[in-house]
Amino acid sequence: MRYKINILLAFICIQLVVAVLFWYLSANTDLFPSKFAPLVTVNTKQTVFKEIICNINGDYNVSCRKQADEVFVPFKFLHKYFEVYGKIYEKQGKEVFNWSHSYANVFVPQQKYVPQGTFTHFQSYKVEERERVKCVSATHGVPMSTQWDPKGYFYPTQIAQYGLSHYSKHLIEPAPVKYVLEDGDIHANWLVPHVDAEVKYVRDIEINSSVMCFSSVLGNPVTLHSNITLPILSLNLQLKPDNASRFTVTLENVLEKRTYRVHFICNENYIWANAQDVYYGILCPKNSKKWIKLSRDIFIDVQKGIMLQTHSKSKTQRSVFRVESIELTGEGCVDNLTSMSSDHMTHFQFAVDWFVNNQDPSGGWPNPVQRKMAGSLVLKAGWYSAMGQGHGLSVLARAYHFSKRKLYLDVAEKALEPFQKLSKDHGVLAKYMHELPWYEEYPTIPPTFVLNGFIYSLIGLYDLYKLAPADISHEAYTLYSQGLNSLKKMLMLFDTGSGTTYDLRHVTLGIAPRIARWDYHATHVNQLYLLSTFEKDPIFATTAKRWQGYMSGKRASHN
Amino acid sequence: MRYKINILLAFICIQLVVAVLFWYLSANTDLFPSKFAPLVTVNTKQTVFKEIICNINGDYNVSCRKQADEVFVPFKFLHKYFEVYGKIYEKQGKEVFNWSHSYANVFVPQQKYVPQGTFTHFQSYKVEERERVKCVSATHGVPMSTQWDPKGYFYPTQIAQYGLSHYSKHLIEPAPVKYVLEDGDIHANWLVPHVDAEVKYVRDIEINSSVMCFSSVLGNPVTLHSNITLPILSLNLQLKPDNASRFTVTLENVLEKRTYRVHFICNENYIWANAQDVYYGILCPKNSKKWIKLSRDIFIDVQKGIMLQTHSKSKTQRSVFRVESIELTGEGCVDNLTSMSSDHMTHFQFAVDWFVNNQDPSGGWPNPVQRKMAGSLVLKAGWYSAMGQGHGLSVLARAYHFSKRKLYLDVAEKALEPFQKLSKDHGVLAKYMHELPWYEEYPTIPPTFVLNGFIYSLIGLYDLYKLAPADISHEAYTLYSQGLNSLKKMLMLFDTGSGTTYDLRHVTLGIAPRIARWDYHATHVNQLYLLSTFEKDPIFATTAKRWQGYMSGKRASHN
Repeated sequence: MRYKINILLAFICIQLVVAVLFWYLSANTDLFPSKFAPLVTVNTKQTVFKEIICNINGDYNVSCRKQADEVFVPFKFLHKYFEVYGKIYEKQGKEVFNWSHSYANVFVPQQKYVPQGTFTHFQSYKVEERERVKCVSATHGVPMSTQWDPKGYFYPTQIAQYGLSHYSKHLIEPAPVKYVLEDGDIHANWLVPHVDAEVKYVRDIEINSSVMCFSSVLGNPVTLHSNITLPILSLNLQLKPDNASRFTVTLENVLEKRTYRVHFICNENYIWANAQDVYYGILCPKNSKKWIKLSRDIFIDVQKGIMLQTHSKSKTQRSVFRVESIELTGEGCVDNLTSMSSDHMTHFQFAVDWFVNNQDPSGGWPNPVQRKMAGSLVLKAGWYSAMGQGHGLSVLARAYHFSKRKLYLDVAEKALEPFQKLSKDHGVLAKYMHELPWYEEYPTIPPTFVLNGFIYSLIGLYDLYKLAPADISHEAYTLYSQGLNSLKKMLMLFDTGSGTTYDLRHVTLGIAPRIARWDYHATHVNQLYLLSTFEKDPIFATTAKRWQGYMSGKRASHN
Repeated sequence: MRYKINILLAFICIQLVVAVLFWYLSANTDLFPSKFAPLVTVNTKQTVFKEIICNINGDYNVSCRKQADEVFVPFKFLHKYFEVYGKIYEKQGKEVFNWSHSYANVFVPQQKYVPQGTFTHFQSYKVEERERVKCVSATHGVPMSTQWDPKGYFYPTQIAQYGLSHYSKHLIEPAPVKYVLEDGDIHANWLVPHVDAEVKYVRDIEINSSVMCFSSVLGNPVTLHSNITLPILSLNLQLKPDNASRFTVTLENVLEKRTYRVHFICNENYIWANAQDVYYGILCPKNSKKWIKLSRDIFIDVQKGIMLQTHSKSKTQRSVFRVESIELTGEGCVDNLTSMSSDHMTHFQFAVDWFVNNQDPSGGWPNPVQRKMAGSLVLKAGWYSAMGQGHGLSVLARAYHFSKRKLYLDVAEKALEPFQKLSKDHGVLAKYMHELPWYEEYPTIPPTFVLNGFIYSLIGLYDLYKLAPADISHEAYTLYSQGLNSLKKMLMLFDTGSGTTYDLRHVTLGIAPRIARWDYHATHVNQLYLLSTFEKDPIFATTAKRWQGYMSGKRASHN
């Protein structure tokens, strides 16, 4: 028994000695000051791991590691120095470090591009969800941008992308799920307050349809309880232009058990909010017997209202919302009130209508905000963008193809005019070295030759050339083919051997080049692949492939 | 006593257990297969070092290391992937890893460039030592290139660089050390064989100098023993144009105790060798009374002879050679035989004379070999190079400044002609986008717009403009200033945001850009800094500084 106690005592003693020894070693092996925790290694064969200082270009030091003859460099430094990306993933129970040269994706087209089909890969775009979209206007049904003015404005390029993404989604996605809630024939279960309220069904002769009309007072609306989880609420609405009358959707954030109300009301402001009340203004027609078409992603509508107040970049997930009820206040009528999973062609049509209604006498869709550019270049409010014009053509050519309405052709033809005028004459045309025509996304003087905007403008011209009848087609073709010729001759000006430049500002302003960040670079690659599906010249496929290689670290060779 | 033994036993026992435990851990912590020796680590706090696989862009795996949250990447991979450079150095007893983004150096000029001064930083060039130099021709005293033809040929650009480097060294270096060995007045201690040999001193009336003449038979030469360590042997030589007559220098490789003989002999071949005998052919004048001037770096001469036979890239160090003796065989005369540390102005004069004697009726110095270029571009033998023409101007302008000989001006003026003719008309002029004149180092069709060659041609034009009298100066100025204007407008076309391209072949041929390797990039930077010392436009200094930054990993920003 005493032996055992002695052995136990000895054991504890040795444990202590070993512990002290380790502590001593750990405190003294760290020869260089380091941000890292002290490192203890055991030398077996030649496998000592130790710190070694990496002196970077004689400028500063980084704490590296050395094992045998190999030096190991911390990724944190590489990430900053080379802008490469990396993350540890779990793979079959083991950790693997995934090194990425770029963060963007390329869409290699599987078939020939057709102008009546999806617009490039815009089926994956969700324009209205973007942070730069303040809201979707209730009156026009199109997004409003805050990119260059926080007040919000109509940005033709963005509106076109909204339209084209919905057109493309329409072609790709299955038919939407729809529930008609109220159309004058199918009646919803409206709760009508006992005092000063009424619901009646009437025949609107003009539209030859039964509709539901209501009257109620503020605080005591006509109410329809529901449990809607589909995002789109679509309806035709007549609303009395007063402060009381409104179409209201009450939603619950089921996670936070918090209730929000989205109101549609006659007002010239587009969106405002007050705590849990979000307001969308409608420019109601003076003739209050005219119908307004609404097709709202109601979850986005509430989200934009919340963001208006929080100014936070972290959005509330839309999936946490449920529509609890729909309320009708004041005086108005409702028809075709429908809950839908999507309503892409309506949203496309909103964009088409915007382009028809907002073209100016010179054929342009003006950008109503000033834009400051590289150096001291400024585009004064009212500038046209070749990209906006081209996207507009892509919208209108598809609208014409779909509807055969000549109006869309007329608007599209008119939209060619700015392509024929130099930037100094309020057009979008620049000439590289006084020779090669280029359609300017930002028609500054001197020009900047933005690549992706130019190619989008060419695609717009191509769409019209392919879908329009002879006369207009020929006009579009001329602009397209002279632009394509410039593109072929100038494409390599954007090639840095390890990426692309966004534009040629360095050439025209004599300053540093603006490197395209990876998502713009990927756009360049996507655009070239797209052109390669219908243009014979191998330059597009060859260049796209090389540029795609840059995204995984390949580089042009040096001499 | 028994207690103590028990404690000792317990101690040993625990030691064993700990050892077994370590062995077990070391055999089991290495989860991934690795090229590296197994790694044993002790976990104190969170400092375990372990292997982690780095998956590179989904393409392949690299064995990395992980400590706490940081991943460490092996430099061997980084070196290949990014082409960065690194080496371990000892600094104050500690190892430091020096990371270099580039391997080239920039020379920031300390004062304004003056055309009569050193040519850029060519004082540091050693043209004749280059591998591409087959030898220095004994007849012309200028280097012969093997760049595009292993037989060797006269490459105007290289000859000019040889001349300009010696001119620049002359301005920078202290006066050479000289020993006159034999000049007809000072007599060397020649050993004259007893049979069929003679040395006599005679008066050459034409040159008004005493000279030493010799006759001897093969195998029994007139000999001067020496122990010369200075590199240059300079002399005036008359040699009978037969196979026997020769001027021979016998050298010893003192490390290898091996003897070499360098023979100068009348022959139309430039250089040939046979074991330890190296031969330089002289195109002896038909009138054997005419003097030939030789000024040889005799250590380079023997080195080139050795390399001719070994074809090895590792040269014998020149410092291991000593001149043991000088032998005179056959019939001839010698004057001003001198051992010197350098003879730069003679070597410059050889280049000047070559440019005077080898200009063709169109004013060009033709490159006598075919040059295959990017894609399927070919320059047929006889092409002019704007760089060769411009360098020629830099040589001749300095020769004129130094001597005031009108001949040099006449040749320089004539050399302007190819600058005024398009490449297709056997000139060196290209026009970028049909507009901006550019002088082509390689005047292909379509043009390639090599940057460094163009700027060197501008410097040549500038040198002549600054050093020539009014008429010729004006002509040179016109060409210079229109070229400079193009340079300003096109400079940024070469800027990749992280380096420069060597040329614009990617633009004219629609292929991948050719990135300038770091020494060419450094040349671009040096050239811009040089221009910035006398041209007002800030674009040169600004761009030079940015481009210099690229050499330590700085990059242009992206959007």
